[in-house]
Amino acid sequence: MSKKDKIHVAVIGAGRIGKIHTENLVNRISEAEVTCVADIQVDKTKEWAQQFGIGKVIPDPVKVIQDPSIDAVIICSPTDTHADLIIKAAKAGKDIFCEKPIDSNLDRIEAALKEVKKAGVKFQVGFNRRFDHNFRKIRSLVENGEIGDVHIVNITSRDPTPPSIEYVKSSGGIFVDMTIHDFDMARYLTGSEVTEVYAVGNVLVDPKIGEIGDYDTAVTTLKFENDSICTIDNSRKAVYGYDQRVEVFGSKGSAIAYNDRPTNVVVSTQDAVCIDKPLYFFLERYKESFVQEMQNFIDCVKNDEEPMVTGKDGFQAMAIAMAATKSAKEKRPVKLEEIL
Amino acid sequence: MSKKDKIHVAVIGAGRIGKIHTENLVNRISEAEVTCVADIQVDKTKEWAQQFGIGKVIPDPVKVIQDPSIDAVIICSPTDTHADLIIKAAKAGKDIFCEKPIDSNLDRIEAALKEVKKAGVKFQVGFNRRFDHNFRKIRSLVENGEIGDVHIVNITSRDPTPPSIEYVKSSGGIFVDMTIHDFDMARYLTGSEVTEVYAVGNVLVDPKIGEIGDYDTAVTTLKFENDSICTIDNSRKAVYGYDQRVEVFGSKGSAIAYNDRPTNVVVSTQDAVCIDKPLYFFLERYKESFVQEMQNFIDCVKNDEEPMVTGKDGFQAMAIAMAATKSAKEKRPVKLEEIL
Amino acid sequence: MSKKDKIHVAVIGAGRIGKIHTENLVNRISEAEVTCVADIQVDKTKEWAQQFGIGKVIPDPVKVIQDPSIDAVIICSPTDTHADLIIKAAKAGKDIFCEKPIDSNLDRIEAALKEVKKAGVKFQVGFNRRFDHNFRKIRSLVENGEIGDVHIVNITSRDPTPPSIEYVKSSGGIFVDMTIHDFDMARYLTGSEVTEVYAVGNVLVDPKIGEIGDYDTAVTTLKFENDSICTIDNSRKAVYGYDQRVEVFGSKGSAIAYNDRPTNVVVSTQDAVCIDKPLYFFLERYKESFVQEMQNFIDCVKNDEEPMVTGKDGFQAMAIAMAATKSAKEKRPVKLEEIL
Amino acid sequence: MSKKDKIHVAVIGAGRIGKIHTENLVNRISEAEVTCVADIQVDKTKEWAQQFGIGKVIPDPVKVIQDPSIDAVIICSPTDTHADLIIKAAKAGKDIFCEKPIDSNLDRIEAALKEVKKAGVKFQVGFNRRFDHNFRKIRSLVENGEIGDVHIVNITSRDPTPPSIEYVKSSGGIFVDMTIHDFDMARYLTGSEVTEVYAVGNVLVDPKIGEIGDYDTAVTTLKFENDSICTIDNSRKAVYGYDQRVEVFGSKGSAIAYNDRPTNVVVSTQDAVCIDKPLYFFLERYKESFVQEMQNFIDCVKNDEEPMVTGKDGFQAMAIAMAATKSAKEKRPVKLEEIL
Repeated sequence: MSKKDKIHVAVIGAGRIGKIHTENLVNRISEAEVTCVADIQVDKTKEWAQQFGIGKVIPDPVKVIQDPSIDAVIICSPTDTHADLIIKAAKAGKDIFCEKPIDSNLDRIEAALKEVKKAGVKFQVGFNRRFDHNFRKIRSLVENGEIGDVHIVNITSRDPTPPSIEYVKSSGGIFVDMTIHDFDMARYLTGSEVTEVYAVGNVLVDPKIGEIGDYDTAVTTLKFENDSICTIDNSRKAVYGYDQRVEVFGSKGSAIAYNDRPTNVVVSTQDAVCIDKPLYFFLERYKESFVQEMQNFIDCVKNDEEPMVTGKDGFQAMAIAMAATKSAKEKRPVKLEEIL
Repeated sequence: MSKKDKIHVAVIGAGRIGKIHTENLVNRISEAEVTCVADIQVDKTKEWAQQFGIGKVIPDPVKVIQDPSIDAVIICSPTDTHADLIIKAAKAGKDIFCEKPIDSNLDRIEAALKEVKKAGVKFQVGFNRRFDHNFRKIRSLVENGEIGDVHIVNITSRDPTPPSIEYVKSSGGIFVDMTIHDFDMARYLTGSEVTEVYAVGNVLVDPKIGEIGDYDTAVTTLKFENDSICTIDNSRKAVYGYDQRVEVFGSKGSAIAYNDRPTNVVVSTQDAVCIDKPLYFFLERYKESFVQEMQNFIDCVKNDEEPMVTGKDGFQAMAIAMAATKSAKEKRPVKLEEIL
Repeated sequence: MSKKDKIHVAVIGAGRIGKIHTENLVNRISEAEVTCVADIQVDKTKEWAQQFGIGKVIPDPVKVIQDPSIDAVIICSPTDTHADLIIKAAKAGKDIFCEKPIDSNLDRIEAALKEVKKAGVKFQVGFNRRFDHNFRKIRSLVENGEIGDVHIVNITSRDPTPPSIEYVKSSGGIFVDMTIHDFDMARYLTGSEVTEVYAVGNVLVDPKIGEIGDYDTAVTTLKFENDSICTIDNSRKAVYGYDQRVEVFGSKGSAIAYNDRPTNVVVSTQDAVCIDKPLYFFLERYKESFVQEMQNFIDCVKNDEEPMVTGKDGFQAMAIAMAATKSAKEKRPVKLEEIL
Repeated sequence: MSKKDKIHVAVIGAGRIGKIHTENLVNRISEAEVTCVADIQVDKTKEWAQQFGIGKVIPDPVKVIQDPSIDAVIICSPTDTHADLIIKAAKAGKDIFCEKPIDSNLDRIEAALKEVKKAGVKFQVGFNRRFDHNFRKIRSLVENGEIGDVHIVNITSRDPTPPSIEYVKSSGGIFVDMTIHDFDMARYLTGSEVTEVYAVGNVLVDPKIGEIGDYDTAVTTLKFENDSICTIDNSRKAVYGYDQRVEVFGSKGSAIAYNDRPTNVVVSTQDAVCIDKPLYFFLERYKESFVQEMQNFIDCVKNDEEPMVTGKDGFQAMAIAMAATKSAKEKRPVKLEEIL
């Protein structure tokens, strides 16, 4: 492929996730070329961008969006800027990858998606876990009917350590920040829409999280249109590492995804028989899924195909997260239609 | 030990579970001697009892209870006879093992337990799963503080195939018949009392089960006094066999009990890499736990100790089952105090 | 079954293994009745026998063999008494179960087996591992052709701790005492005869074992008539417990038997993710296989069938053990025909 | 890092393995720059090289070696060209990575390594498996003394399917072509030198392999200076995929590396409970180890450090392979000193 065939990409926001996407685009995805990064911290970003051969770093994302040489934008800036940038990028005819959540307000999400539709540009939301090798296999088993009708889904999703209180404060709460990935996973695996949510929230890890009105431990039950039921259990602190497991149980059987571990070595000594702890956190566990999600986006742009994670997926997951938050506060099941 | 040192036991009701207890007492528990079996079907029972060297088979359980040579009775007759037999046996000073549930009515359970207390006899309920090697290890890990404070419990409990519709009709419903074991397991593992129950029931396996007002698929969430949360997922039909797993997650880690399988053989062929399916059903999986529970009862009788599963355990599990039934019907969380 | 239908069994030698067989016959095998035990230590043995309701304990095994009320004898006395007792028992028309090894001398084994054949009595050797659930499954996979032609067999067989030096001195050496089980396993799994043996012996666990001319660590390679090759690795000391694994690899795939463990619980903490150590030693690991082997013997006696482990199996295993011993000493491959 | 800081690398031979190294150097190793590829098939290679931005493709490797702008060469040409290219590259002062084996003749290997030593250039041999995450962990456990003194090593190494007969003909035989990796692994894991080899070779997969005097199934026993013993079992055809396992057993315990699989999903159906087959072949299983080995080489060149796999490692593995070949032919143990 000559340079001319490459998709020219701009990354907006060079925080942790913006850097991951940039590195993957540069080193692992030959069909893309990152020609520009937009970030307020220009100097620091320039220094970092240099090692990837990215010459252009500017502070203003709008300028990037208006640059006619850019084919697609990767939006990794703070959540409250997403909707506006999506609208501007859509109007400029750019294909869009946007980190989750699209926005914390369903109306603003709708407005942004409307513009995307009008412009006919590609739009993909950053639910990277759909691209994890384990979950992908389970989804394909469900899709091919090998598990039969889905009856029960169990998701275990626990972080190794809570984020800072500052982060938690602006996160929108555990259901919007953390469980939202599991809500998307549940929709992805069942292929059905949630009708009702019952969530129990507890503060068992860090009282400070409770003081600001959030939870660090949560159990959520989802009812689906196809009559399947899903349980999700979350904790902000699993001392043994990132615990990411999923089971789909159906009329023809069960499929369980266990954790990935650094090695497959079993050590037997006088004291114990031990295996590796799970991969430490999302950067390790989902390393390849970030590459695959970006590859999927670039492929869709290149081949004019619909991305695997759509705007609707971003909207629904946010709606479920809001219903869960309401359910935990009001201690009762909340129908999704109460939120929509 | 001379014959005189043996505990003389009578078994009341020689159905499936009565036969299991009898065989275990005869072949595996040297401290006990089964001297009598009471069952309405005298002839059929006599034929079976002969091979175990049990000479006495009579139709009337009350006569057994009044027999002064009997030290203890094993009540395995239909549920609606339990309370009455318990009261009679207590009054006659017999130590009592009673199959679960004690009764379908909480007042009758209370009345029976009151008589037990007054008589000062031993009383054990048939929650055999507490004696399973896997679950016992998890309980001991929790007891020794190795998992820390309990935050989340996940119980998966699925049968390989539904019972007959006739059985289901008289079973009291899935929560009273099947999940009751899991309710006891949750109390056993957490060492705490349930405060609230939220249950979702579905009919996904056999429409006939729905026609008689019962469910074949259920997901229950329990809140506990110690702030832990428990999820239980049940199905009447896991095509791959009896699925009995438990996880306790706490501040210091997680303990998971996986299924037992007939062998530890892994077979790799061109088509697949396969292991054995789980042990088929409760007779296979809990074979040793039935021996251990009977051993525990006989030991308690012999050594004047409190059994591991008490009358209170039987009462509480039934109350939770009733709350779950109510919750599934009324589609809302039900506090346990509504039931008590 | 009436008492008259039972096989009347005498146990000769009430050491550790004699006691195991007796207990299993009394408690687990309803078709047999142990009516007599022969052991030089009459008083001690009487005390122990009483609890199993065995009234007759005498010092002289020959008297037992001559007792017309006895149907079968279980020979658990020291190895150097086996051949003589077998010959006497065969002449008396008793069916015979004999612990391994039959004898340390191939000619004496042949002489004893000749008498057995002449008398037409049943004869079974105590290679109990053939009755292990895991190995039985692998054998049946091989038999049914599911692994295809056998190409390679790998056996790992390690004890948790070495026996006393006194025991080792009279044991005949590691190949005759320990590996002999693996030699039988290799023949059992492949269904073929050994043609050549290459054994390497080391002293890495306890120098005292080396001082008396034995090894505590050994690796043996067996060639078979069917062109399959088998490796066996032995150690007298695996600090993590009894390590008993087997793999058969063939043209259609591989079957591996992993260790049995007390529970299937996985514990994850900050330090490690651990499972149970293997069952501690042969009494724990092969508990059920001892029951099954005795059941098989009694069934064969009762139904006039050929036992699963024959005199030839005892002979061949001993011959391989002798070839291995020679190979380790002379540091060269030894053909089995050199021994026969 | 500016372009000037990069190590300038030339790849000699753009066959399968040359292409892998090139792609890894370009996409995954930022400290290196591939400026030139030498391959006789210039046109085909140019087309392929273009996509990696490599402008220079020439037919003559000697010209590459003489190019003063080149810092290091990656030798991936046919084995019989290695020694000569190593000598020329060493004389030209280039650091050298050479694919295994260095040469099929020990004298030529020695001559080449002598020149390398004289020139003081870096030299690394392509035993990539040392960089596999599983085996690296086992080596580090051994190094840190966590397994204690090494007593036994078991290596299982089976290919999914045999190579073409043409390949086999020129391969030097199974021990030189395939087992050589396991010989290196055994030395790597034990940290000790082989003293004696006993190898059994069979033809069980494809008679054509036998017709040209080679084997397709082999079992090798290695004795080491430190008294540990190693078994290696090889097959050219494991129908379930690439089987690459290793166990080190020592005085303090055992460490086993199991196979890597595409996912950690367990599927339970009425028919079976199945997991993924192992990763298909070396390209899949050792994908990351190829990156790590190249990273190690470039790091060593950059930081003036000794590579993890030295010329001596290449020499010793070849010597063991020759001893194994001799042992299989002569059907007797062969001391390594017979070869040296």
